Amino acid sequence: MIYFNSDYMEGAHPLILKRLSEINFHKNSGYGHDDYCRSAKEKIRSACKSPNATVRFLVGGTQTNSIVIDAMLSHNEGIISAETGHICNHEAGAIEACGHKVIILEGKEGKLSALTVAAYLREFFSVGYGYEHLVVPKAIYISQSTEYGTIYTHNELQDLREVCDRYGLYLFMDGARLGYALAARHNDLWLPDIARLCDAFYIGGTKVGALFGEAVVITNPNIKLTLGYIKNRGALLAKGWLLGLQFDTLFSDDLYMKIAKNGVEKAIRLRNAIEAKGYPIYLESPTNQQFVVVENSKLSELSKKIGFNPQEAVGKNHTVIRFATSWATTDEQIDELISLL
Amino acid sequence: MIYFNSDYMEGAHPLILKRLSEINFHKNSGYGHDDYCRSAKEKIRSACKSPNATVRFLVGGTQTNSIVIDAMLSHNEGIISAETGHICNHEAGAIEACGHKVIILEGKEGKLSALTVAAYLREFFSVGYGYEHLVVPKAIYISQSTEYGTIYTHNELQDLREVCDRYGLYLFMDGARLGYALAARHNDLWLPDIARLCDAFYIGGTKVGALFGEAVVITNPNIKLTLGYIKNRGALLAKGWLLGLQFDTLFSDDLYMKIAKNGVEKAIRLRNAIEAKGYPIYLESPTNQQFVVVENSKLSELSKKIGFNPQEAVGKNHTVIRFATSWATTDEQIDELISLL
Amino acid sequence: MIYFNSDYMEGAHPLILKRLSEINFHKNSGYGHDDYCRSAKEKIRSACKSPNATVRFLVGGTQTNSIVIDAMLSHNEGIISAETGHICNHEAGAIEACGHKVIILEGKEGKLSALTVAAYLREFFSVGYGYEHLVVPKAIYISQSTEYGTIYTHNELQDLREVCDRYGLYLFMDGARLGYALAARHNDLWLPDIARLCDAFYIGGTKVGALFGEAVVITNPNIKLTLGYIKNRGALLAKGWLLGLQFDTLFSDDLYMKIAKNGVEKAIRLRNAIEAKGYPIYLESPTNQQFVVVENSKLSELSKKIGFNPQEAVGKNHTVIRFATSWATTDEQIDELISLL
Amino acid sequence: MIYFNSDYMEGAHPLILKRLSEINFHKNSGYGHDDYCRSAKEKIRSACKSPNATVRFLVGGTQTNSIVIDAMLSHNEGIISAETGHICNHEAGAIEACGHKVIILEGKEGKLSALTVAAYLREFFSVGYGYEHLVVPKAIYISQSTEYGTIYTHNELQDLREVCDRYGLYLFMDGARLGYALAARHNDLWLPDIARLCDAFYIGGTKVGALFGEAVVITNPNIKLTLGYIKNRGALLAKGWLLGLQFDTLFSDDLYMKIAKNGVEKAIRLRNAIEAKGYPIYLESPTNQQFVVVENSKLSELSKKIGFNPQEAVGKNHTVIRFATSWATTDEQIDELISLL
Repeated sequence: MIYFNSDYMEGAHPLILKRLSEINFHKNSGYGHDDYCRSAKEKIRSACKSPNATVRFLVGGTQTNSIVIDAMLSHNEGIISAETGHICNHEAGAIEACGHKVIILEGKEGKLSALTVAAYLREFFSVGYGYEHLVVPKAIYISQSTEYGTIYTHNELQDLREVCDRYGLYLFMDGARLGYALAARHNDLWLPDIARLCDAFYIGGTKVGALFGEAVVITNPNIKLTLGYIKNRGALLAKGWLLGLQFDTLFSDDLYMKIAKNGVEKAIRLRNAIEAKGYPIYLESPTNQQFVVVENSKLSELSKKIGFNPQEAVGKNHTVIRFATSWATTDEQIDELISLL
Repeated sequence: MIYFNSDYMEGAHPLILKRLSEINFHKNSGYGHDDYCRSAKEKIRSACKSPNATVRFLVGGTQTNSIVIDAMLSHNEGIISAETGHICNHEAGAIEACGHKVIILEGKEGKLSALTVAAYLREFFSVGYGYEHLVVPKAIYISQSTEYGTIYTHNELQDLREVCDRYGLYLFMDGARLGYALAARHNDLWLPDIARLCDAFYIGGTKVGALFGEAVVITNPNIKLTLGYIKNRGALLAKGWLLGLQFDTLFSDDLYMKIAKNGVEKAIRLRNAIEAKGYPIYLESPTNQQFVVVENSKLSELSKKIGFNPQEAVGKNHTVIRFATSWATTDEQIDELISLL
Repeated sequence: MIYFNSDYMEGAHPLILKRLSEINFHKNSGYGHDDYCRSAKEKIRSACKSPNATVRFLVGGTQTNSIVIDAMLSHNEGIISAETGHICNHEAGAIEACGHKVIILEGKEGKLSALTVAAYLREFFSVGYGYEHLVVPKAIYISQSTEYGTIYTHNELQDLREVCDRYGLYLFMDGARLGYALAARHNDLWLPDIARLCDAFYIGGTKVGALFGEAVVITNPNIKLTLGYIKNRGALLAKGWLLGLQFDTLFSDDLYMKIAKNGVEKAIRLRNAIEAKGYPIYLESPTNQQFVVVENSKLSELSKKIGFNPQEAVGKNHTVIRFATSWATTDEQIDELISLL
Repeated sequence: MIYFNSDYMEGAHPLILKRLSEINFHKNSGYGHDDYCRSAKEKIRSACKSPNATVRFLVGGTQTNSIVIDAMLSHNEGIISAETGHICNHEAGAIEACGHKVIILEGKEGKLSALTVAAYLREFFSVGYGYEHLVVPKAIYISQSTEYGTIYTHNELQDLREVCDRYGLYLFMDGARLGYALAARHNDLWLPDIARLCDAFYIGGTKVGALFGEAVVITNPNIKLTLGYIKNRGALLAKGWLLGLQFDTLFSDDLYMKIAKNGVEKAIRLRNAIEAKGYPIYLESPTNQQFVVVENSKLSELSKKIGFNPQEAVGKNHTVIRFATSWATTDEQIDELISLL
């Protein structure tokens, strides 16, 4: 068996393990009051050209989504998401568990368009009657790269920003796979752009070289993400320096970008080989997740040799399946996978 | 101006006010520990042929929906509703405020079909992968009559019950307008049927003759609706006898049915007159809400003389509007409305 | 049996029932968008000399406490209360159900002193270490009159206000029995004072002449109590005019004060008779609740003829019991009670 | 400076880092569906002699407390704790954030006695009146070792169990420092005892040799701790095998006990030296936390050279301070600390 199920099947970049070992017996202050966190925050602020941003380190993606979204919304406010958004389908109701409705709009290939959102908001706010009965949309959730591997362009994000400004909404980007978006070939959306256009976003570590951890960047000071609130949610890691050290490492010598690039390169090699073998590509993904249409009989044959995720059915006889590469994927693994297809 | 906006614009049946006045200076025990509550519960259990049902009195519909649904669901469980369900669109996120996702399925004329639900559940439970990432459907929400005035038949409810049994779900009926459903001409779904087929439902008072109040009937003992829990939610009325006395009155001498019948009869007279005037009826409603398609120019003309609710747009030039009659609507009011159309 | 268990055993002042009957078949807008609510709000703002205050009508006391307190606090913030506070002991955890800790400080005869609160806050905010681990005190809860019938003086409330200003806390007054405090003989704390010194408070109707209902007055614009939030909590009464009409009546011709005065006068007559009969008065209450120490053998004898509430044990052989009069108590009832003691 | 502030200042036992490095490029299934988790669960069940226990791995202590306690309690139920309990004072209201009141009873040296709890419960359940207004006690929270380093004996835990059985409560043990309790000299409470006498408890990794992680053991099947619920709370680690591998290591070759023993031995050496130097020992702790009374002038002198935690004031001039050793503390560190005192 060879596994391409997800991008969080391996541990961490060896440099992270090396540094963890080196400081293993140092005595660090708890809860993020340590030099590694300070240094990592500085590096992230600098990479984002956002000297005043608040940076917080959390452990995982669902935790991060629910805590940041809850910090943005008041009681009867909700967050807009494409129906493919991670918060809609893969978080066991974690946003609702914080008391908030996820307002589902139709996306395309994992992305929300500014037009769709604007049309919805125009209608919502034009109805004089009935605000008190409706969940008020107050934020937009997008992911970069998306659950379908696609990425927003600079223009697309700017358009969403303008809609947010027009109607007073926050823009929040789930960056669990942000590294792979940044490393995509035609990407034109960089950390400083994201920091400028979003009110809050996070830089994913779990899927891009860290053992675990997500770095939240908040540029809108109206969103309060205090340590006390994080503690109250049971999400303040006692040994906060574990997170600081990992992000300090990832944001030194461009490591985050370098390893993300590997994930993307391997995925593109795989994509081309798949196409060459005659499998229909489900959609064009420039990042580390590739989606292929296979006949169901073929699917069960493949599943004996290869680990992958079935994504959705296409008609009665076909299924879209996902192969995910990662920062750690090797050419040998890709070779083997190709030979098995 | 004449008002047909909703069925909760008037006070209470005069008999209720009379009895309230008569006992105004009696001294009653609080929190539902009084004889009126005891008597009303007994009458309701008897009308439902459910001698062991738990009956609770709450103040309003949204409160009732959120409290009962929260009592049925565990953390990562959700409730299925048609997209027209009151809990989806008119309760400002009250279900999500209790931590639960409303899982939206496509309905027809306000109703959920057993086929639709079964198809969804079959797929949900056939997927071995990913339960822990998904909100688990654990209950179905329906309303009788629905938000579009339609009613479930006995067979339809039985089919939903069978789906619930097959997959281990609760069936919950929002009966804010139950009286008008019971009074509909071809109705074949009576209180004992509802009590037998649903795990929990409520008999609406606010819209059917009471000043305020909903009577919850719980026939499945796994659903715990204790006074302590109701208090914890801020929903335990100190003067609980106000609720008891109202339902005791409504369930004496068949009053609930008699006054509901008036609402339906007036609505059907109105419906026929509307049709005779050439307006297209949007859908066949046998209850106290009638839905008519009007041109938008006509709509703004009518709205100067008549109070009604715009329901939804039909194309660019037409709108569906709702007229609601009630237990208190008179023939004179209907005459006047007809003359203004 | 004669009942002095509580001040919410009777219905409403007859004038309220009369007006309810008069408008019973009028057609009113729902959710508080009606003329009675508008008029009542205006009268309350005027009585409070707070032309810009937000006034909202809610159904009951626990509901009001939990909704207002939740509106004042962020995630990891708590509210300070005396250990006798209603929110500590009689609301089944309704504040915690909203996610907030009640921080208990020692009170005296139901009251919190500014000294006690200041000492606690001084220590809390002097500790540099550990804020993120502690619940941050952000509001103070007091009741007027208190659960022991006592009242705050103008000076005492002003001192609490100063403590709040020094440490950035909100001051919230539970006025479920505010009428009886206003009617107390030496009271020097009037509605305009309360509106000026508190950030939010409510004027109780349920216990002072209304069928039900509490009027919340919010003078600090940082506390948002929107209709949408109230709906989200299941607390927005469909027939909001029922609340508006009641408070409009209570705040016309000084009715609220007149009927509260009756409750207090009867209580003081009772208090004097009790003392004359040789029972020890537990504490000096100038309002409608009177607390008496009785031997336990006497208690069980009395409880056969009189309804009252046991409050707390005093040693092994005595119990403090409470008699509550109300706006509706008559001299005949007091005569009878005295004759039975 | 030398640091004795806490027992979570170092990383992990080197064997854990070694194994993490060895499997760093293996491809593991996510969310705990991996062989390390399976193996670790088996070893823990075996160490607890509880073949049917549910074992779950979570990331940190506050997260664990809030998730397990929320799983045990219904809406209007609360948990009893000594006033020194971690959930009362150090978790920023995480239990209240889940909707539950912490009912505070007086402890002694960090421990709750069965007598205290029984007296409280006897009174609570003897009062017929008023259950619906009170938070119902449904669980007891204790910690082993406690926040003051003390430990429960077998008899003491059995007495608490009996009280729980009598009144239908769950018994939950916070074992963040369980290793140090097990390693205490006169300890007579072993894992199988704890598993038999508690309904749920956890074995702390963060403070005893792991990078992070707590292993929850649930022996009462009425307490449901599903992966879906954990996910819903944002607490399901994607790379669950990181937790499994750590506990698999700690529960191989008795490693957990061996390293815990080191923490305790160093603490006892320190304790004896402190006493020899003439400082009053605040209370007898047989585990890795030692509490010493120092004059405030001495305190500020010491704090220039030594990191420690001030615990509480004793009169005006003295303070209790805490020194915490850990699994990683060396004799050299103790020597240096002693020389600085």
